Amino acid sequence: MSLPIVIIGSGFASYQLIKTIRRTNSDCVIHVFTNDAGDDYNKPDLSHVFSKKQNLEDVITLSAGNFAEQYNVVLHSYTLVESIDPENQTVTANGEILLYEKLVLATGSQTFIPPFHGDGCEDILTLNSLREFEVIQQKVLDAQKLLVVGGGLIGTELAMDLASAGKSVILVEPNTHLLANMIPDFISLPLENTCREEGVTVNLSDCVQSVNKQDDGYRVTTTNGQSYQVDCVISAAGLKANTRLATKADIAVNRGIIVDSTLQTSARNVYALGDCAEIEGKVMAYLQPILLSANALAKTLLGIDTALTLPNMMVKVKTPAYPIQLAGNTSANIHRWSIDLDVQGICAKAYDVDNNLTGFVVTKDHMKKAFPLFREIHNTN
Amino acid sequence: MSLPIVIIGSGFASYQLIKTIRRTNSDCVIHVFTNDAGDDYNKPDLSHVFSKKQNLEDVITLSAGNFAEQYNVVLHSYTLVESIDPENQTVTANGEILLYEKLVLATGSQTFIPPFHGDGCEDILTLNSLREFEVIQQKVLDAQKLLVVGGGLIGTELAMDLASAGKSVILVEPNTHLLANMIPDFISLPLENTCREEGVTVNLSDCVQSVNKQDDGYRVTTTNGQSYQVDCVISAAGLKANTRLATKADIAVNRGIIVDSTLQTSARNVYALGDCAEIEGKVMAYLQPILLSANALAKTLLGIDTALTLPNMMVKVKTPAYPIQLAGNTSANIHRWSIDLDVQGICAKAYDVDNNLTGFVVTKDHMKKAFPLFREIHNTN
Repeated sequence: MSLPIVIIGSGFASYQLIKTIRRTNSDCVIHVFTNDAGDDYNKPDLSHVFSKKQNLEDVITLSAGNFAEQYNVVLHSYTLVESIDPENQTVTANGEILLYEKLVLATGSQTFIPPFHGDGCEDILTLNSLREFEVIQQKVLDAQKLLVVGGGLIGTELAMDLASAGKSVILVEPNTHLLANMIPDFISLPLENTCREEGVTVNLSDCVQSVNKQDDGYRVTTTNGQSYQVDCVISAAGLKANTRLATKADIAVNRGIIVDSTLQTSARNVYALGDCAEIEGKVMAYLQPILLSANALAKTLLGIDTALTLPNMMVKVKTPAYPIQLAGNTSANIHRWSIDLDVQGICAKAYDVDNNLTGFVVTKDHMKKAFPLFREIHNTN
Repeated sequence: MSLPIVIIGSGFASYQLIKTIRRTNSDCVIHVFTNDAGDDYNKPDLSHVFSKKQNLEDVITLSAGNFAEQYNVVLHSYTLVESIDPENQTVTANGEILLYEKLVLATGSQTFIPPFHGDGCEDILTLNSLREFEVIQQKVLDAQKLLVVGGGLIGTELAMDLASAGKSVILVEPNTHLLANMIPDFISLPLENTCREEGVTVNLSDCVQSVNKQDDGYRVTTTNGQSYQVDCVISAAGLKANTRLATKADIAVNRGIIVDSTLQTSARNVYALGDCAEIEGKVMAYLQPILLSANALAKTLLGIDTALTLPNMMVKVKTPAYPIQLAGNTSANIHRWSIDLDVQGICAKAYDVDNNLTGFVVTKDHMKKAFPLFREIHNTN
């Protein structure tokens, strides 16, 4: 019997990889190490848990035990991997050493909590995994007034979901507009207006400065001199790849664990997958690149080295009151924008200097144009 | 000899009317009452006086004496009209009574100063006339840090002019965007960005709450909890038509002195002209409607009743770092906007439900499209 494939992590990337492997190979030995239970769940659902009043059970699609059985994996739940040794091809956990044939780091990312002042910082909540949902659920349900740090994709979705759930929400974003890394300011405007209509206080161009405990809740102050009394603070100020094991094993790490086109790290037979991996200089936390990565890596692990090719990808912003879809280049070095704006939303097309369509953003009813535009980008590029 | 034409006010509207009358009639008797000197000046120049380091003499195009002589008018400088009597067709000033044939109220408007708290309110400056420029000039020159109340046309122009003059400027606007009565938010964005690049602190969706005197300058607080230490505060929070004389004489007044299509007020032989007049429900402080009004009224006063017709008019925003031109309907009930946006600026076209062009906003280099678009509005409407 050959040595097993070992996967560290039990998030979307890990489980997607396992499902893909099992489509063509049912018997290779797979070990999964995870520091939580290892239940399978649909991560995008976390964007709607509060407005949909969902519990842990509603989000879990397959319990850990059932997953392990159905996909024939040896699951090491609640097990922290202490170290990996790429030279000897071993993993150490609970003092035991396991040899591997191939090792996949799918250690995911964690939410970045900026270094604020104050004694309330230790209580700042995050929501980037099922486990965190379990931890924060009751606190959020009990809270009436919440402050969300960061108006990127996750922070904006979360703020609107909390508002839909009847909470009073303050969203603080250092950039001049929401989703600043994804879309230009003039497309963010209707989203900001919708947030405000939904009752979210949108505070732009401002930064949280301190979080201090009060008798009941927290006092949050900002650089611009705002002061908010809230029941809890949630950080959505960006993701930080979990690279501890890789760094300790001298594997090359930058913002994420650096991988080549086959998703192999700087160490032979060690791969990285999902939002702990840095592909072509980018850490990609979106579903589609992770799906494509899992497909390529499954083939590689089963013996056919397969390079990942990432086409232009469509991104959805899951804010039901103002949904947005985008693809291609929509944020940097746009030569010209051509925009249609009406009560049905926005259709904004980005062109390069040769007048080729390079990207687009469509909102609300104009989202029906997403696929035709997506094809147009591919045909002209 | 017939009774004179009496004009109250010596601003742009009054003097434009006189110039127009004198083009065809050199001898009818015209009396002008004004509570300032009565110098002729180009009011739009006030938008640039600080950056251009201009003095009173630079802005005055013709001294009061020369104007009176050149245009053959009897000028009553520094003379406050106490009352008018439409029934007996008299004007009372300095205890003397003057009979008129026709009376024109060109009393202008004054800057609205919202009712803030604090003992510094009495020191709030305004700049809506040559006289006010004379009063505030030295204070503004001496100030290093200024706060401008109101991000409409005048406030925005003024804030940018002060910034160009090397001042530190804070602009506070209650609306979500600058020029909120003229253009939609997405077109304001580049203007706001330019303001910020020029060093203006743009504080939107916020209101000044109090202005209090300090040892050196003023402490200004806002509804959102901002607090600014400044050397002076200038209000550009909108204009208020000067309607005192009309109201006292029981002439119909709403936001301005209500006039019919010949610019006659509710009193026979009493007319209102300029930004004290309310035409079709609107008080128009722009140059072009005042020019057209003066042309029509000159004919009426000389015996040929002439109705004013106001075509679509072009408005220029005189912010040199981000100039804007607009015409037609650009703020309400737009069915669809079609927008081109590139490094050369914005070309935004507004369409009605039948896909007719009803208005446009062009900025920077796209301003060269203003006249073709202007003609297109006229052809399709």
